[in-house]
Amino acid sequence: MGGLDRIMNVIIMAGGAGTRFWPVSRSHYPKQFLKIIGPHPLIEETYLRIAPLVEEKRIYIVVHEAHKELVKEIFKGREVRVVTEPSGRNTAPCIGLGLIHIMEEYGDGPVVVLPADHYIGDVAAFQDAICSAVSVVDKGGIVTIGIVPSRPETGYGYIKRGEPLLGDKEVFRVEAFVEKPSPELATQFLSEGNHYWNAGIFVFRAQAMMEEFRRYLPEVYEGLGYLRDSLGRSNFEKRLKEVYQRITSISIDYGVMERTTSDLFVIPGHFPWSDVGSWQAIFELRSHERDEDGNLLDGNTVVLNCKSTFVYSRSERLIGCIGLEDIIVVDTPDALLVSHRGSTQDVRRCVEIIKERGLEEFL
Amino acid sequence: MGGLDRIMNVIIMAGGAGTRFWPVSRSHYPKQFLKIIGPHPLIEETYLRIAPLVEEKRIYIVVHEAHKELVKEIFKGREVRVVTEPSGRNTAPCIGLGLIHIMEEYGDGPVVVLPADHYIGDVAAFQDAICSAVSVVDKGGIVTIGIVPSRPETGYGYIKRGEPLLGDKEVFRVEAFVEKPSPELATQFLSEGNHYWNAGIFVFRAQAMMEEFRRYLPEVYEGLGYLRDSLGRSNFEKRLKEVYQRITSISIDYGVMERTTSDLFVIPGHFPWSDVGSWQAIFELRSHERDEDGNLLDGNTVVLNCKSTFVYSRSERLIGCIGLEDIIVVDTPDALLVSHRGSTQDVRRCVEIIKERGLEEFL
Repeated sequence: MGGLDRIMNVIIMAGGAGTRFWPVSRSHYPKQFLKIIGPHPLIEETYLRIAPLVEEKRIYIVVHEAHKELVKEIFKGREVRVVTEPSGRNTAPCIGLGLIHIMEEYGDGPVVVLPADHYIGDVAAFQDAICSAVSVVDKGGIVTIGIVPSRPETGYGYIKRGEPLLGDKEVFRVEAFVEKPSPELATQFLSEGNHYWNAGIFVFRAQAMMEEFRRYLPEVYEGLGYLRDSLGRSNFEKRLKEVYQRITSISIDYGVMERTTSDLFVIPGHFPWSDVGSWQAIFELRSHERDEDGNLLDGNTVVLNCKSTFVYSRSERLIGCIGLEDIIVVDTPDALLVSHRGSTQDVRRCVEIIKERGLEEFL
Repeated sequence: MGGLDRIMNVIIMAGGAGTRFWPVSRSHYPKQFLKIIGPHPLIEETYLRIAPLVEEKRIYIVVHEAHKELVKEIFKGREVRVVTEPSGRNTAPCIGLGLIHIMEEYGDGPVVVLPADHYIGDVAAFQDAICSAVSVVDKGGIVTIGIVPSRPETGYGYIKRGEPLLGDKEVFRVEAFVEKPSPELATQFLSEGNHYWNAGIFVFRAQAMMEEFRRYLPEVYEGLGYLRDSLGRSNFEKRLKEVYQRITSISIDYGVMERTTSDLFVIPGHFPWSDVGSWQAIFELRSHERDEDGNLLDGNTVVLNCKSTFVYSRSERLIGCIGLEDIIVVDTPDALLVSHRGSTQDVRRCVEIIKERGLEEFL
């Protein structure tokens, strides 16, 4: 299985701002460009996972125009396509923009949508799931890869599976998309075994998804049609700005998946996965790198009597830690974060305060 | 009382390394030179407290030769005398060195010895105690100012008082110098009311102290005599190095106070005092500056859901703190300390590790 036996196209969505990784993540250098877990930037890790399955030039990376040069630098010498957005409009317009490029170039065909900034722990299992999904959508419908939960996580949305697709090994109809659950509900999901984490990975045929846009997001569809008419022409950039100024900002989940009456399938993904949503998530993902006191130490550190403490340094500074427990220290040349491990979701709020105070140079 | 009615000489001992205030305190810039509490460097605060009582030129500041220029800068335009030591040999040689300068210049007379790096909260009460002490030593003996304890502190040495000196208001014979006590003993001391904190403040006549050196520290005495012979001559610096290479490193407490059979008196100091021994001590001394959550915030900070947290910044960096409790963050351009408030005594150990690792540039 795998290889290039099966033709497919890929949209890597790389438009995020990643404010939860401040102060390492900055507006000019968001999360997906950071080597935050693994040896490559997250976006490159995403590329490397899918690259063995697809022709390089059929991989479309959709990115904010401010980050175009960053992407080009990372993918120098590779034939991937870089598609820019003038502003972030959530995942539906992002996927739509990728789609019109793909259809212009290759017509109809399977499309795999991947967020650029997630972690996947077993590449072979991931590739298996993608190949299964591509073969399912040959017969129509939309497939999502649902991650088999390893804990009663309340920070993720869930997908409830329905009947199995007859004749297939592990494909189920989607019964419902479920919002982030309460701890009780998450525990119930885990014990029942019929809910998966929504990882934002979707597979469909290009034409089928355009049809969904036409039905459920007609304004987005109209904007995409207007853009498609000028693809490859000199007025494209002007039209792109125009369209993006008024296009609805909406997620593919809310705009299409939760509304459609088309066939929706879920394939269980049996691999470690994380949306890498906080410093705490990094600390958990890198558990094997911790020392005997549970500390995870990057950089130039002197540590005394600390437990379960995470130092992530992107500076040359010497960092002394004494008597800490469950603390995260993130050091950069011009900004420093010290947070309790249980509070790293609030980094986003911290960034908002910095913005409110007009301290733009630190964003 | 006070003014210049009474002639006295002052030795300010400024030879400390102050490693407990790393990373702000460095080998080239130790604690006594920091504006760590109050508007002036600690050494200048010490000077300003005693200056109204004494002729400027009778104030002798004993300092490591590496810090001579720092002292000269702080006391520019003032007539204080700066005496340098080639290396630190604890308080007995330091006082001895000050003494030979004083005796050469002014002969016998009252001498007040003050550590350069302590905090005193009530200058008038301090000056009263000093003046009382000076009038007591007119009749002989050694007087120490013992601080009336405000809590059962286990980090200080104590002075146990004996009989009151007849005819005087608040002067007692010293019954014993007591090492740092257990918590139980410290609580007992506090309730009995007959123990004082040893603040390292001593008053005596110069000739009387030289006699103590002769009796109890004969080798130190001999070295001092050898030095005194060449005071003001070209070979003094050479002799100073020579003597300091072999002179015993010993404290005045251990070398003289705990051994002498001369008259020892203690005058209670009724003023807030601290040896400013740790970052935690600073946090306590500046309690009136804390915000409603008990945080003490210097520098460019964004703080979310923190309690009793202390940020001391000597950098231009933005510091975000989230969900912290009882944490101390000390930020400088090239080094950072993050410590639990209860662990700041271990900063010294942290500095030792830095030294062991050969990271001299951070010391």
